[in-house]
Amino acid sequence: MSPLFIEIIGMLAAVIGTICWLPQTLKVIQTKDTKALSFWTNLLLLITVVLWFIYGIGVGSLPIIIANTAAIILVGTIVIYKIRFG
Amino acid sequence: MSPLFIEIIGMLAAVIGTICWLPQTLKVIQTKDTKALSFWTNLLLLITVVLWFIYGIGVGSLPIIIANTAAIILVGTIVIYKIRFG
Repeated sequence: MSPLFIEIIGMLAAVIGTICWLPQTLKVIQTKDTKALSFWTNLLLLITVVLWFIYGIGVGSLPIIIANTAAIILVGTIVIYKIRFG
Repeated sequence: MSPLFIEIIGMLAAVIGTICWLPQTLKVIQTKDTKALSFWTNLLLLITVVLWFIYGIGVGSLPIIIANTAAIILVGTIVIYKIRFG
């Protein structure tokens, strides 16, 4: 694989891995149905994106900081709804 | 932040970001309840971890390859159950 191809794959993964939360967050807000969602998966996910956010600050990467700020808002919303609606 | 601290944060994020899928996958297998789960979020997540897997092969990183192999199995199972049980 060429370095450019590898970089593009990595960037695609980072972008899709961030926007992927949007449909789940919208669904949870619209339906308030969180029954099938795992509390632990979403809490651990929130911890994960907070850690990536800190990592982004540590390495000074604006794309990592921006992507994980978005992810913190989206996944954080899911966790709040899960706690509130069970 | 020291480079070691940043590395530890990144490794923690990678480990937690992989094992976090386990509770959701087990819950879906046990309950067959996927109603509240977003199909698009889980499909995009599966695409994301496949892309990270390819990225891991590209950069020759065994941790990335192993972590995303596990994630492909866990998220892939969720997607299959979502398609099957709706």
